[in-house]
Amino acid sequence: MQVGLVGLGKMGFNMRARLRDAGHEVIGFDPRPEVSDVASLEDLAKALSSPRVVWVMVPSGTVTDQTIVSLAGILGPGDLVIDGGNSRYTEDQPHAKLLGDNGIAFVDAGVSGGVWGLTEGYGLMVGGADEDVARAMPIFDALRPPGPVEDGFVHVGPVGAGHFAKMVHNGVEYALMTAYAEGYEMLAAEDLVRDPQAVYQAWSNGTVVRSWLQQLLAKALREDPDLAQISGYTEDSGEGRWTVEEAIRLRVPVPSIAAALFARFLSRQEDSPTMKAVAALRNQFGGHAVKRVSESG
Amino acid sequence: MQVGLVGLGKMGFNMRARLRDAGHEVIGFDPRPEVSDVASLEDLAKALSSPRVVWVMVPSGTVTDQTIVSLAGILGPGDLVIDGGNSRYTEDQPHAKLLGDNGIAFVDAGVSGGVWGLTEGYGLMVGGADEDVARAMPIFDALRPPGPVEDGFVHVGPVGAGHFAKMVHNGVEYALMTAYAEGYEMLAAEDLVRDPQAVYQAWSNGTVVRSWLQQLLAKALREDPDLAQISGYTEDSGEGRWTVEEAIRLRVPVPSIAAALFARFLSRQEDSPTMKAVAALRNQFGGHAVKRVSESG
Amino acid sequence: MQVGLVGLGKMGFNMRARLRDAGHEVIGFDPRPEVSDVASLEDLAKALSSPRVVWVMVPSGTVTDQTIVSLAGILGPGDLVIDGGNSRYTEDQPHAKLLGDNGIAFVDAGVSGGVWGLTEGYGLMVGGADEDVARAMPIFDALRPPGPVEDGFVHVGPVGAGHFAKMVHNGVEYALMTAYAEGYEMLAAEDLVRDPQAVYQAWSNGTVVRSWLQQLLAKALREDPDLAQISGYTEDSGEGRWTVEEAIRLRVPVPSIAAALFARFLSRQEDSPTMKAVAALRNQFGGHAVKRVSESG
Amino acid sequence: MQVGLVGLGKMGFNMRARLRDAGHEVIGFDPRPEVSDVASLEDLAKALSSPRVVWVMVPSGTVTDQTIVSLAGILGPGDLVIDGGNSRYTEDQPHAKLLGDNGIAFVDAGVSGGVWGLTEGYGLMVGGADEDVARAMPIFDALRPPGPVEDGFVHVGPVGAGHFAKMVHNGVEYALMTAYAEGYEMLAAEDLVRDPQAVYQAWSNGTVVRSWLQQLLAKALREDPDLAQISGYTEDSGEGRWTVEEAIRLRVPVPSIAAALFARFLSRQEDSPTMKAVAALRNQFGGHAVKRVSESG
Repeated sequence: MQVGLVGLGKMGFNMRARLRDAGHEVIGFDPRPEVSDVASLEDLAKALSSPRVVWVMVPSGTVTDQTIVSLAGILGPGDLVIDGGNSRYTEDQPHAKLLGDNGIAFVDAGVSGGVWGLTEGYGLMVGGADEDVARAMPIFDALRPPGPVEDGFVHVGPVGAGHFAKMVHNGVEYALMTAYAEGYEMLAAEDLVRDPQAVYQAWSNGTVVRSWLQQLLAKALREDPDLAQISGYTEDSGEGRWTVEEAIRLRVPVPSIAAALFARFLSRQEDSPTMKAVAALRNQFGGHAVKRVSESG
Repeated sequence: MQVGLVGLGKMGFNMRARLRDAGHEVIGFDPRPEVSDVASLEDLAKALSSPRVVWVMVPSGTVTDQTIVSLAGILGPGDLVIDGGNSRYTEDQPHAKLLGDNGIAFVDAGVSGGVWGLTEGYGLMVGGADEDVARAMPIFDALRPPGPVEDGFVHVGPVGAGHFAKMVHNGVEYALMTAYAEGYEMLAAEDLVRDPQAVYQAWSNGTVVRSWLQQLLAKALREDPDLAQISGYTEDSGEGRWTVEEAIRLRVPVPSIAAALFARFLSRQEDSPTMKAVAALRNQFGGHAVKRVSESG
Repeated sequence: MQVGLVGLGKMGFNMRARLRDAGHEVIGFDPRPEVSDVASLEDLAKALSSPRVVWVMVPSGTVTDQTIVSLAGILGPGDLVIDGGNSRYTEDQPHAKLLGDNGIAFVDAGVSGGVWGLTEGYGLMVGGADEDVARAMPIFDALRPPGPVEDGFVHVGPVGAGHFAKMVHNGVEYALMTAYAEGYEMLAAEDLVRDPQAVYQAWSNGTVVRSWLQQLLAKALREDPDLAQISGYTEDSGEGRWTVEEAIRLRVPVPSIAAALFARFLSRQEDSPTMKAVAALRNQFGGHAVKRVSESG
Repeated sequence: MQVGLVGLGKMGFNMRARLRDAGHEVIGFDPRPEVSDVASLEDLAKALSSPRVVWVMVPSGTVTDQTIVSLAGILGPGDLVIDGGNSRYTEDQPHAKLLGDNGIAFVDAGVSGGVWGLTEGYGLMVGGADEDVARAMPIFDALRPPGPVEDGFVHVGPVGAGHFAKMVHNGVEYALMTAYAEGYEMLAAEDLVRDPQAVYQAWSNGTVVRSWLQQLLAKALREDPDLAQISGYTEDSGEGRWTVEEAIRLRVPVPSIAAALFARFLSRQEDSPTMKAVAALRNQFGGHAVKRVSESG
């Protein structure tokens, strides 16, 4: 089928390729002319036959907001917009309302898979009305991994449900990464262990902890056995933060996910104000030696 | 090759079957005559040709200690004992010493895979001298999953290294389980999500969080969608506790693994003394209503 | 000086008494006629001489919102409203704007002390313009504990700063309570310790951990040595949740505060869905016995 | 009364002064002749009248072990040894046994108070037989803070109980320090807050969080408002580690104490191996930019 694709960055670019490989007609728009198929959103709308399906794959927040507003003005009754970006699920209802006022349907799609999605397919978590999801199903089928549909695609619920599930996916992802990383640190700290990489590699089959992330850590350690070339400084996307915020709203205890999030915050601090205060307290009551800034290198 | 197998419980019973399927001659001993091939450890020793290889697969702690002591008296120079149970790695050196004083070699083997190992093979993490590991390699090859050897077997280091790696494996496993479980609780708490099971199922392909544990949780939720038949009361094996203790020794921060361990402790309390004290404090300073014991049940 | 006081609940009632003891003229309003000095907010406004000072001490959220809206219509230029309730600090600016549009000044005041404030005085954290804070200073001086002003009162910053500091105070309070409570649980679990109460009592002088909360826990344990009469079920006010949310916004790692918050969520669950999922996973991979719901109580 | 005091370091030196101020005859021994009253342990024993009381105040572990062994050979039936150092409580029974074989009684005393103990008195937690504790009571009375005995001294239980309670005290202390420190970091991060010091100072009276540690943090911030002169690098004594280990033995969940301990481990790492592994994983699956080591300095 025919689909418009707004945003041809790291994710959108690959998705256009995967959709075309599956035989779909994709017209892509991106502000960078060297990758774009058309010159503007208006041209994109004109190039598509009604009823149109437009997949939005741009940074969440302001850029997605602006794109939805523009599409609400450009598209028309019977068209369908799919937000495949990492929008916070609370933004989906307002977007659906805005588009709906113009007769345009809306579906939110959480997309997992990163740079591997091009070849392996993307895990898809989708929210929206049954008929809207059904209409976009050929697109979803092309993007998702091969195999049984229920193993790589889920219609989670009404509008917002897709991004909610994707948010939880990313929260779980944070905690899983930290779990594997703590295990790595222990193996690396113990003299008995010759090579942590070999252990992570050996966990590939038969073990309880085998997973894609386990394989990736084995791969990373093969490429850089001591992780000597990489800094612990780690960004966080919005989704980890949102997961903890939504957990608080839902009164769900998420110590693992929160710990993983806080560890990322900490990794970006030159020195921890919390620990400076702890060191200051120790100094006050115990006369414990503290490390002065001038000593700390 | 020929191997003696001491302990035919849930794990040992299946391992005998898998080894025999691979063409090895296994003579098993267990105190329960209905599963045992011989009547005693002494008979087991007699039934094996020298130099003998005996795999010990009994509960860690006292039972393993007693078995090793017995074997030290029954076996002789040139023989090899492999401890495949969940012994704490700190017990391996004493066991190796005791056996070594009688000329008997020792290898420790961490075995992962649970009830699935029979058909899929067991993930193996092994510690010991090169020549001893090499000698037992046909056994390891039969037990490990098919495929490249390095994907399901690792010679981690000297005696103790195998059980150390297995201990870390289990610590990581604890944290992974909690991560997936927190995600489940969030999905189950949010009205937008129709069916958490479908989400876990859909994470099987393409997503970052895909793993064996993810598949198992999808399976568990398929069998009992609200987990209505299962209590949160969760035992812990020694290995989770040891992982945190060893992390403390190594000065490795393991907040995720510790959180998972503490959550298990908490799950087994009728009411948390910590939270009783918190409630008592709230009552003291705020005149906050507290729930009296008579109201809580 | 003269002050209007809206809200004569657990806190406001005591504050009226303390202010009157200090020689101030307090006119209190509460919907419950048996405690109220006037029949309505309008009557309260009429009973006060201009420029008026009105202290609002009602539940945060909707009730505070409605009270501020009403006062914006009833009071006039030159008057001053102080919100002494537990409003989220993000609500202070909108309230200040609304009142300011009517020429009414606004100060936010975080108030700590609970039921003990009547006799010991209230810890006060205040936000607003210098002149507004100065104007209300006689009120603050009467409410705060005796002694140096800086030991029980702080003008934290502009509007919102008072409630922000109070929110952090409560977040810290959560973590402190959990810290003492964990210590209690350890003392109670160890057979060597005859009486945890005596230990908490003995921490009153000379130790590093001495504090008001330590004294309160000693008192609670004196009254109910095993906390047999109290359930661990613990409510949380908004402020603990807001603290973690604001920490996320500020990218400040707060593992202790978050752990204390999550422990409260958990204390209110009959059974933890997270732990049910962990138990289900254990069952799936290990054939571990799980506790069926029918067995658990 | 007369008492021998072994170890005149930071703690012992002050304790000698405090005991002498209270009218006791103290004979101190320390390997450093400039502070010692006698030349050797043997001379100390000779200088004391039988039955002798000897207070040991030396570093825990090897030095305490050696001192106890020496005293077991030098002292005799009817004498009493008090270990006031930070020994792990599990060492108390072996020490008591060794001394008891020579007819020497033993009491363990946990001592809190740091450099402030000289003037304010030391919080004391004591383990041992009733008659032994009674005998040393004049010493305890001189060392403990003035006021009711139960507010600064506790006979916790049999041998070991004193050090156990002191260990828990320090575990709680770790968690309290982290709680206050997290609050400081939040106040320092928020622009609305003019001066975190003033807030901590104002918590001195009337608030729920008032405590000695709160006062000390206010003092530390007064001396160095941005903690600019202090590094977050923080040592940990054995007692924090032991607390978590004993919690594991007792199956007591201590997330707050463990988090505080792990934060100290982390503060001493140049870069966190755990976070390097997390960053490496992000890089693997997402093509996320990572910070190369060359950029991070």
